[in-house]
Amino acid sequence: SPKWIATDLYTLSHLDPSTAHNSDILKSTLSNASNQDLPAIYSSRAFAKFLALQARATDAKHCLEVGTLGAYASIWLATENPNLKITTLEYNSHHVQVAKENISNADLGDRITVHEGPAMETLPTILSDIDAGKLPKFDMAYVDADKTNNWNYFDAAVKGCRKGAVVIVDNVVQGGLIASQDKPLDKPGHVEGAREVIENTGKDGRVSATVIQTVGEGSHDGFLFAVVL
Amino acid sequence: SPKWIATDLYTLSHLDPSTAHNSDILKSTLSNASNQDLPAIYSSRAFAKFLALQARATDAKHCLEVGTLGAYASIWLATENPNLKITTLEYNSHHVQVAKENISNADLGDRITVHEGPAMETLPTILSDIDAGKLPKFDMAYVDADKTNNWNYFDAAVKGCRKGAVVIVDNVVQGGLIASQDKPLDKPGHVEGAREVIENTGKDGRVSATVIQTVGEGSHDGFLFAVVL
Ligand SMILES: C[S@@+](CC[C@H](N)C(=O)[O-])C[C@H]1O[C@@H](n2cnc3c(N)ncnc32)[C@H](O)[C@@H]1O
Ligand SMILES: C[S@@+](CC[C@H](N)C(=O)[O-])C[C@H]1O[C@@H](n2cnc3c(N)ncnc32)[C@H](O)[C@@H]1O
Repeated sequence: SPKWIATDLYTLSHLDPSTAHNSDILKSTLSNASNQDLPAIYSSRAFAKFLALQARATDAKHCLEVGTLGAYASIWLATENPNLKITTLEYNSHHVQVAKENISNADLGDRITVHEGPAMETLPTILSDIDAGKLPKFDMAYVDADKTNNWNYFDAAVKGCRKGAVVIVDNVVQGGLIASQDKPLDKPGHVEGAREVIENTGKDGRVSATVIQTVGEGSHDGFLFAVVL
Repeated sequence: SPKWIATDLYTLSHLDPSTAHNSDILKSTLSNASNQDLPAIYSSRAFAKFLALQARATDAKHCLEVGTLGAYASIWLATENPNLKITTLEYNSHHVQVAKENISNADLGDRITVHEGPAMETLPTILSDIDAGKLPKFDMAYVDADKTNNWNYFDAAVKGCRKGAVVIVDNVVQGGLIASQDKPLDKPGHVEGAREVIENTGKDGRVSATVIQTVGEGSHDGFLFAVVL
């Protein structure tokens, strides 16, 4: 809705002005992605900043992201948190190439590591590196890839997380279709994937969680916010 | 919108079932408040749980709340965080009395302290107790009282907070009126108070912040999420 967009633009004009320290690099991250035909499905600016502030509030040192795209959210996380390393997973090799360009332009190659491949194949190696002490546990995880695997990614993320870590899954509301009998026509599996992660999380004694419904530059959707107990 | 309400009810049925450890005490908190004619302006269930999880993720030990009402949010915070103490401020003596009953019924009198009086009068004493080392700094603050004082409460909260603390201000979107030329007819000062806290926060070098627009059991609104730098 135009009202939602106008509200984000108003709040961002004050809270994320073009004079912000990371504004130029984030703008060129998005324009490079767009010039190279990446879909405009990155997290909204207000929400990406929320993720970055969340990392800051929890003093996170190591964050997992499933679904890199052009590394927009990763670069938000890294530029707001000088001590944070990000492990981010992406299976589309063109997205990986653009993400790496953006990370290199932002001079963040030492803190953002992109693993190429289907996340269900790269996650096991990352989890065994954590088990073997080669990688620190995650203090935070952000799941934002193929929605049908939401629960699998959530489950793996919790395995790699320390106690107290926050796990956020984006797009679990799907315009309210999760609570409706209407059959969604587009985006096959998105509603089912959202319901599965919500319903399984509710039964999962490892975490406590809530869903916050959001509107803004993006459409009506929402995020699952879980804390590892 | 009915769709927003149905979505909250669906997610809560899974993530906050009536078998949850604190479900009974939270229900009787609300029914006692309603029986004693408190207005139903408490934070929504999904959002109150979000606040409680936020405290958990940041391992908060001391939280400030401005605007107690019947202590619903306070009891959420305390029951999800066994090591958390809450200092909460309320000027309406009937609300204070009901809040104290609810806190006592929940057996949380040792961890939730209600200060009666206009918050602009009780805050200075609390801040000087913090300065004098009689009270620990706040790890988190939740501003949810008279909206015209949003900025004053935010400013005071930041003064009492440690580095890395989260300060959340509720109801800063007001159905999108903050970004509209329309003159709001009801709730005088709410829109102005929301704009003031957003605009001043944007100029405030002590914090970094974003606004997340929300929908749900409550109407279209949103929260300011700031981290003390
Ligand atoms: C919504 S975008 C991620 C946006 C990014 N988190 C941001 O905010 O900038 C989802 C990404 O997940 C990737 N993806 C889809 N399926 C995947 C899979 N099985 N494994 C890894 N990545 C996948 C897509 O190629 C796409 O780049
Ligand atoms: C929205 S309610 C708070 C709800 C509560 N935070 C919850 O989620 O359960 C706002 C409360 O602020 C109180 N209030 C209003 N002005 C105040 C003031 N100047 N000082 C302290 N409290 C005030 C009102 O009496 C009311 O109880």
